[in-house]
Amino acid sequence: MAEASTSSDNSIGIVKPQTAEFDEPLSLANGRSLARYQLLYETYGTLNKDASNGVLICHALSGNHHAAGLHSYDDPKPGWWDAYIGPGKAIDTNRFFVVSLNNLGGCDGSTGPTSINPASGEVWGPDFPSLRVRDWVHSQARLADRLGIARWAAVVGGSLGGMQAMRWALEYPERVNRCVAIASAMKLTAQNIAFNETARQAISRDPEFKDGHYQRSDTVPRSGLSVARMIGHITYLSGDGMGEKFGRQLRSGSFTQGQDEPVEFQVQSYLRYQGERFSDSFDANTYILMTRALDYFDLAREYQNDPVKAFSHAQCKFLVVSFTSDWRFAPARSREIADALMAANKEVSYAEIESDAGHDAFLLPNMRYQAVFGNYMAKLADEIETGEQEAGN
Amino acid sequence: MAEASTSSDNSIGIVKPQTAEFDEPLSLANGRSLARYQLLYETYGTLNKDASNGVLICHALSGNHHAAGLHSYDDPKPGWWDAYIGPGKAIDTNRFFVVSLNNLGGCDGSTGPTSINPASGEVWGPDFPSLRVRDWVHSQARLADRLGIARWAAVVGGSLGGMQAMRWALEYPERVNRCVAIASAMKLTAQNIAFNETARQAISRDPEFKDGHYQRSDTVPRSGLSVARMIGHITYLSGDGMGEKFGRQLRSGSFTQGQDEPVEFQVQSYLRYQGERFSDSFDANTYILMTRALDYFDLAREYQNDPVKAFSHAQCKFLVVSFTSDWRFAPARSREIADALMAANKEVSYAEIESDAGHDAFLLPNMRYQAVFGNYMAKLADEIETGEQEAGN
Repeated sequence: MAEASTSSDNSIGIVKPQTAEFDEPLSLANGRSLARYQLLYETYGTLNKDASNGVLICHALSGNHHAAGLHSYDDPKPGWWDAYIGPGKAIDTNRFFVVSLNNLGGCDGSTGPTSINPASGEVWGPDFPSLRVRDWVHSQARLADRLGIARWAAVVGGSLGGMQAMRWALEYPERVNRCVAIASAMKLTAQNIAFNETARQAISRDPEFKDGHYQRSDTVPRSGLSVARMIGHITYLSGDGMGEKFGRQLRSGSFTQGQDEPVEFQVQSYLRYQGERFSDSFDANTYILMTRALDYFDLAREYQNDPVKAFSHAQCKFLVVSFTSDWRFAPARSREIADALMAANKEVSYAEIESDAGHDAFLLPNMRYQAVFGNYMAKLADEIETGEQEAGN
Repeated sequence: MAEASTSSDNSIGIVKPQTAEFDEPLSLANGRSLARYQLLYETYGTLNKDASNGVLICHALSGNHHAAGLHSYDDPKPGWWDAYIGPGKAIDTNRFFVVSLNNLGGCDGSTGPTSINPASGEVWGPDFPSLRVRDWVHSQARLADRLGIARWAAVVGGSLGGMQAMRWALEYPERVNRCVAIASAMKLTAQNIAFNETARQAISRDPEFKDGHYQRSDTVPRSGLSVARMIGHITYLSGDGMGEKFGRQLRSGSFTQGQDEPVEFQVQSYLRYQGERFSDSFDANTYILMTRALDYFDLAREYQNDPVKAFSHAQCKFLVVSFTSDWRFAPARSREIADALMAANKEVSYAEIESDAGHDAFLLPNMRYQAVFGNYMAKLADEIETGEQEAGN
């Protein structure tokens, strides 16, 4: 996942994560349950009087609760979706109350593989229950209850986050006003599963992985995580985008005959840097858990594999967005979503945005994306504010 | 690389590899030299009287000398290009004398990292000199001398093999009658280099790699090789092809809620099998050496980066072939070759073949590919045989 490189003028400013503890057991799709868990989350903006302006942000594979703003004044980088969340931005924090959480199973503060298993008193590690997208949706619904939000103005997400947004629309039809699914899919392709499997193999074959019990032995499968991240990174960019960014530029020195040191292209050192950085910050068991949830997701499986039947349960309106050069979640996947929604007689806006940034485009500044997304959300805010006034009169 | 799954009726039959020893030092592009080396090769068909019907096959990343026929009657699989080399096939062994070798630096019998370094008496390992495509071409020219072939009827290769064929046309213009470059490129894209780098990282970060000295410690970096192969395998197939072959089929059992074992898609076990098999048979240092040669290759670099200037040195005619779903060596790369050749006033036939088999398409049966390739080679054979008759009269 790319990240916003600078804080913008219209940043939301300093934000502080909060914790919600849940003691009621959560039944999971795999048949197990979690006795208790905590979710780390941030909120931006103010919840209106009738609690109708809440927007839930669902994160993707390696995202977390820190979607916008800064954690301190010398924080070098803002949250991962700062380009689209803030005052006057597509998700306008002057109008919406935005909730962004670290998903269950994550490694940034919510209960996950790095947490203590209360039953054993030891770190969960690989014994943390496998999760499906619906488990996240159920845990997010409890967070909504806690915050007093009976119905989201919008549930919004890109990639794996879009899958959560769509699942919300089916699991809790009455609790979702708008569903925004960006650069997403109703299920992964074989190629996508294959890339995820290769990344998982890189991790699980790292001797430091120790069958997932690396924390116990105080090791980290850094090599495996690095390679997994490199695979991810290449596939989240487009070929043309990489070509434009790096071409065949050399890192240093010249490409002369008569030398035996390996020639170093800039793209090589860039990738290695990305891999290293990721392996310093991300938990291997979480990575495996998240990619499995991606692989398992199949929106229409329980609806006789009929997406039209699935979406017929939704009560919200939809915005579906894709990016031309995204080959991991190709525009064709988003068109399938839009087509199924139309066949189910749902109101759907679909935009295919020109971009050479690949899958990462959903995180990056882009004029047309900003316009489409911003206008859609602004109309929604208008509607909410009008409704509020009418209710108030 | 895919492989022909069955021996065909018109197989060349049993073939036997031969060895050529070279004692004259070979100067390498990196400034070092090899004091002596051997090349393992196979030949199919009969060299004609004026030695004008020789066809050199250049192999790709993980290929070897065994391009066609069987090594024994109970050999379960034929050579890697058996679909296109044999009696009556595109490269018709009734008409051509075909030479196929394991490249220098390889691990299938030619001198390479697994050979003994005569200077030290120990295995070369990672100290084997890095090679460029031109080094292969020079070593192949010596093999041609040994076989009495002053001029090849054709130098033919796919992928990295196509790079060798093009380099032949520039290094030894007078020794090449036809150059056939299939699913190839004048240089790799940043994305391609990035995938190679990730594969190399997977290998070199495997603790069993031991900085390339794994043979000394009697280990094999199997995990790294497996992951490298998995990355390669995904990228040599097309997304659509994978989807058609595997979809989201499960390996066994059902995808029910209420189970905590990881669900296994067929594509996962298939990839793991491919990785395992490769790690049993391929040398890690060779893999690194070959992918570096791929990365370094830049046809026009020494011609002021002008492909037209580069190709103006060629004296042969060209056949350039690409496949629609090949995204690692995309049709656009082949069109660049064809365009540069035309601008250099060379005679070039270009065919873009419809296929959903991705990069691997160059190895697989395909009617139009067979027709284009076969007709081109048949016309060449006609020309050679007519010339021979005229010379004989």
